[in-house]
Amino acid sequence: MTYCVGILVRQGLVMIADTRTNAGLDNIATFRKLNVFERPDDRIVTIATAGNLAISQSVISLLTEGLENQETGEADTIWNQTSMFRCAQLVGRAIREVWRLDGQMMEQKNLGFDVTMLLGGQIKGGRLRLFMIYAAGNFIEATADTPYLQIGEHKYGKPILDRAVNFEYDLQDALKLGLISMDSTMRSNLGVGMPIDLAVIERDAIHAQLNHRIEAGEPYFHDLRERWSAALRKAHQDIPRPPYDVTGR
Amino acid sequence: MTYCVGILVRQGLVMIADTRTNAGLDNIATFRKLNVFERPDDRIVTIATAGNLAISQSVISLLTEGLENQETGEADTIWNQTSMFRCAQLVGRAIREVWRLDGQMMEQKNLGFDVTMLLGGQIKGGRLRLFMIYAAGNFIEATADTPYLQIGEHKYGKPILDRAVNFEYDLQDALKLGLISMDSTMRSNLGVGMPIDLAVIERDAIHAQLNHRIEAGEPYFHDLRERWSAALRKAHQDIPRPPYDVTGR
Repeated sequence: MTYCVGILVRQGLVMIADTRTNAGLDNIATFRKLNVFERPDDRIVTIATAGNLAISQSVISLLTEGLENQETGEADTIWNQTSMFRCAQLVGRAIREVWRLDGQMMEQKNLGFDVTMLLGGQIKGGRLRLFMIYAAGNFIEATADTPYLQIGEHKYGKPILDRAVNFEYDLQDALKLGLISMDSTMRSNLGVGMPIDLAVIERDAIHAQLNHRIEAGEPYFHDLRERWSAALRKAHQDIPRPPYDVTGR
Repeated sequence: MTYCVGILVRQGLVMIADTRTNAGLDNIATFRKLNVFERPDDRIVTIATAGNLAISQSVISLLTEGLENQETGEADTIWNQTSMFRCAQLVGRAIREVWRLDGQMMEQKNLGFDVTMLLGGQIKGGRLRLFMIYAAGNFIEATADTPYLQIGEHKYGKPILDRAVNFEYDLQDALKLGLISMDSTMRSNLGVGMPIDLAVIERDAIHAQLNHRIEAGEPYFHDLRERWSAALRKAHQDIPRPPYDVTGR
């Protein structure tokens, strides 16, 4: 499994991804799922991937090596797209190309063509944007109303996002919220695990202020997990008991 | 969708189920999913159902009208089983009988044979027990280590259970915890909705102390929802901000 979340706020963008992959319960490994394409003062593009690792690695390779542009004959890469929208289209094209190459054989082997991606970043002259791209190559975009997108094992970490997320949060609060959402997911699904990769991009800075890996045992994250667990238990305890008589006879 | 949870504690058993069903987003209705079979001082058996409504209603009808017992020629019902284990076997048999009658045609129509059930209760002379029965008719049982079972849309409401549930909780705390888990689910999935049915069974009492429907607007549940939301937001706010520099240049 995988869990990745992107949170877009007025001040910028936070991208968080776990690193655990598993092919069955007895084949667990660590792979980076958060890819950062940065050329300072030109573009900062991040891509988080979920689903079949063979597909997502092929997509990332295609985005780096280039897909042939039928009109110009040149290779389209993440590095030469002129807008984030075009980057999202290119990711979709790359997914469809992998489908063309591997999809039918995967279906014959009863392997679902399972892949979703988060694409977030900014290209100079354009807006900071966050997209989610589906296995069909189509995509949606986060807005101020719903400023977060999730891929992979998304349900465990969604309740806190639904309740707390706010486009007006500053970047540190957005990062904190994303880490709580990640913690909730790791707690309930062993297929999502440490270390955690994160990138924080300030709007209009056109580079990643933070591109960091949280290893198991990092004190801040350990403390966050402890505090969050304690706070949930306390919140539960502080709610008054139900008014129903449940033991009378 | 549906969400049902059963929590088994030393003091007794809590069963909670929502009532929303939907066949598509434009066909939403209210159906009771928590069935209570009570004959005071003999048995208290509750069954919560998730999945295809046609299947689960047929199963409940079979459990009430009876399945022919090949050995005795008599009709086996929930009312004449001599233990909770036999009740669980009977629920499994009823599911397989519905599969025999409707399963192949449903598959032909590309409808999955989707049903799971929670069975909880006590028959005089036996223990208070909680089972989850799968679509194949097999089942598992809750234990003191993992004293809760969920069916339906279970992920949103699982993090709080994973963190807080405890076999030593008294019935009111278990009920409160179940209602928080239900609230988290309703908040994140519109397919799970009010009213909520609940049953509370004290161990060895052999009847339901509480068999209640929480309607929309009931003050206690409304207050619980508000307090839980506020507590989650506060818990998030109270956690220190990440130590990373996310806006320096």
